[in-house]
Amino acid sequence: MAKVIVDVVLKDEILDPQGDAISRALPRMGFTFSPTSVRQGKSFIITLDHEPGSDELSEIEKAAATLLSNPVIESFSIRVEN
Amino acid sequence: MAKVIVDVVLKDEILDPQGDAISRALPRMGFTFSPTSVRQGKSFIITLDHEPGSDELSEIEKAAATLLSNPVIESFSIRVEN
Repeated sequence: MAKVIVDVVLKDEILDPQGDAISRALPRMGFTFSPTSVRQGKSFIITLDHEPGSDELSEIEKAAATLLSNPVIESFSIRVEN
Repeated sequence: MAKVIVDVVLKDEILDPQGDAISRALPRMGFTFSPTSVRQGKSFIITLDHEPGSDELSEIEKAAATLLSNPVIESFSIRVEN
């Protein structure tokens, strides 16, 4: 069994009001760490019943670029966990 | 500079209609890989201007449990990227 995880994040130049809201909420809630920025992303956990081959990984990459992310405002990365 | 990434996923026993919809869309869109399941999660990318100490990491863990996730239906994990 393997998990292929597609992490989708907003591109750096795209504003992220939800991330900013979290950043502002932290001190108000008593947290003392002060991040440079907080950004929110999405992830898609694709579970396969076998190790993905390179063909499958390139299919998943195509799905990530067309179905799971919006290439205009988002970028994605793919990692495999066993 | 370091990035602390909080990955939030729905607990296994919680239904994920959006993940199911993606799973069903894949063959319809011509993709040939067939996952056992697709689950959607959220991620929060916390950028710090320094390496986080253990105190800071435990603060971030507290924030993940109270602000960034709903412990009733979600679980989270934390990873650090340099």
